[in-house]
Amino acid sequence: MSGQRNFVIGVDLGGTNIAAGLVNSAGQVLRQEKVKTKAQKGAQEILDRLMSTIEKVSDKDTWKQVQAIGIGSPGPLDPETGVILDTPNLSLKNCPLGPAVQVRFGVPVFVDNDVNVGTLGEYVYGAGRGFRNVVGIFVGTGIGGGLILDGKLWHGTSKNAGEIGHMVIQPDGPLCGCGNRGCLEALASRKSIMRDLALAVQNGRPTSLLDSVGKDRDLLKVRSKAIAKSYHNGDPLVKETLDKAAGYIGLAVKSLVHLLGAELFVLGGGVVEAIGEAFLEPIRAEVLHCLPGTAEGVEVRISALGDQAGILGAAALARTRLTES
Amino acid sequence: MSGQRNFVIGVDLGGTNIAAGLVNSAGQVLRQEKVKTKAQKGAQEILDRLMSTIEKVSDKDTWKQVQAIGIGSPGPLDPETGVILDTPNLSLKNCPLGPAVQVRFGVPVFVDNDVNVGTLGEYVYGAGRGFRNVVGIFVGTGIGGGLILDGKLWHGTSKNAGEIGHMVIQPDGPLCGCGNRGCLEALASRKSIMRDLALAVQNGRPTSLLDSVGKDRDLLKVRSKAIAKSYHNGDPLVKETLDKAAGYIGLAVKSLVHLLGAELFVLGGGVVEAIGEAFLEPIRAEVLHCLPGTAEGVEVRISALGDQAGILGAAALARTRLTES
Repeated sequence: MSGQRNFVIGVDLGGTNIAAGLVNSAGQVLRQEKVKTKAQKGAQEILDRLMSTIEKVSDKDTWKQVQAIGIGSPGPLDPETGVILDTPNLSLKNCPLGPAVQVRFGVPVFVDNDVNVGTLGEYVYGAGRGFRNVVGIFVGTGIGGGLILDGKLWHGTSKNAGEIGHMVIQPDGPLCGCGNRGCLEALASRKSIMRDLALAVQNGRPTSLLDSVGKDRDLLKVRSKAIAKSYHNGDPLVKETLDKAAGYIGLAVKSLVHLLGAELFVLGGGVVEAIGEAFLEPIRAEVLHCLPGTAEGVEVRISALGDQAGILGAAALARTRLTES
Repeated sequence: MSGQRNFVIGVDLGGTNIAAGLVNSAGQVLRQEKVKTKAQKGAQEILDRLMSTIEKVSDKDTWKQVQAIGIGSPGPLDPETGVILDTPNLSLKNCPLGPAVQVRFGVPVFVDNDVNVGTLGEYVYGAGRGFRNVVGIFVGTGIGGGLILDGKLWHGTSKNAGEIGHMVIQPDGPLCGCGNRGCLEALASRKSIMRDLALAVQNGRPTSLLDSVGKDRDLLKVRSKAIAKSYHNGDPLVKETLDKAAGYIGLAVKSLVHLLGAELFVLGGGVVEAIGEAFLEPIRAEVLHCLPGTAEGVEVRISALGDQAGILGAAALARTRLTES
């Protein structure tokens, strides 16, 4: 350790929390801090809280060994300049986040969107180690995606590549938040899954899920763990709905095997991680129907980094961008 | 010219014809030859005919200036080794095409599949000049695709990336030759378009197309030019069918803008080129519905190289692979 600048700091800027961690070259989180974002208090407050969280994970001695800071943030943002263009979840607009942090701490600062950072974290420290062409698919309220092509995060001309949630899977499917029909997000996100479950319940389908949400029968309050429990207990409605969502993700994965020749698909997000391997079966079943010569060796895995995905992903961003620059 | 080795030879190996051309550094075809492939006579005959076609486009003096040979061939093949793995259209199986030509002529030989080569040709010499991230979509009997990412042909881990024709566009759509349902190829290839036209005619829909095929009313005999003529004359069935096919391609393009952040889509193939710009309108209409920040500056164009696409694409392959190696 001594004398070598071999630490990075990874920062996960989220709508609810800001987490930061001091990460060594082996990908171990040596110290970490988490504070509330308090996004409603405005840009300056968010920046102040972010700066002080970074300060807390390092002292004078270790600080000398920090090579760079990586930050994962909601987008859209410009990964080259580190400027947050706009975030629906935070009150940051045209905010030079990267430059501001760099001026404060005097080390290189790299910013990318949370899903890209999540994919990069899996690639460097998690389920994607040893692969070169990796697709990350994160099922949350929406569906986010990230692409690692030939070992590098792919941004495309638009700088906004990786929007797997807005691949059209069923042209006459449900309306998506983006205004199009049948986007993957409109078919297989947590929000879409809950919409389908609620509709089935309205239509009289029984489900053990209702046991976990109390008297008002509000399915929106259901937690991922409860969904996973019902799934693994064989609740027919839950299994049918989740397998259908996974099947749609499988269609996207099949398209991506054909299109990109990717070798690994990493699936993450609360519900997916709570259910685990069983969620992957309908996806793997689709991969079996790929063209000859396209899917040999293709793997589908659950993300491996869990709670530390945000910090480790941002640390991976700092390390890889340092190497590239 | 004198003294400089600044020529390449581009070879277009097809199921019907073999074409070869001597191409200078400005992308001009100085001399070209075309012979029948005579695929039914077997691998040795194909190789002999290919070798002698290459010989014919160069004489002793110009030969000294040939830096490399590029070959576009039906796949699947291995672009690294130049081995044709299998071709349904030719009787080549595990055929070391690249190495055989290299031994014969003593210059580097590079082989890639015809659609990748077509995309690369447009990128280097045609509609894609000046862009960095280009998607080629070629509508023939099937639908082939090629990806240029950051200025390079993308092969992926499978070495078979770019199979845009087998992106799933409509999961409950018509059966594709690959065994899946609703692939782009099953919705928008020439074969699918003719299937839809024939079905409509069976159901009594009138169309001017029948005027061009004689008494047996066999729509399979219809030529691309006749389809384009009916389209531009406002034949309702032909316009409806072609616009629907283009609309499906538009959905794929929208997905690819979101996924890859590509900036240019080049459309080629007989029917598409015969119809021209009008075929692009339904595609451009879909691009207008992309997410904010993803489609600014995205262009959709008709391929520019026409009859010389095969030779120029193979020449572009030779030049770019030489630079990379």
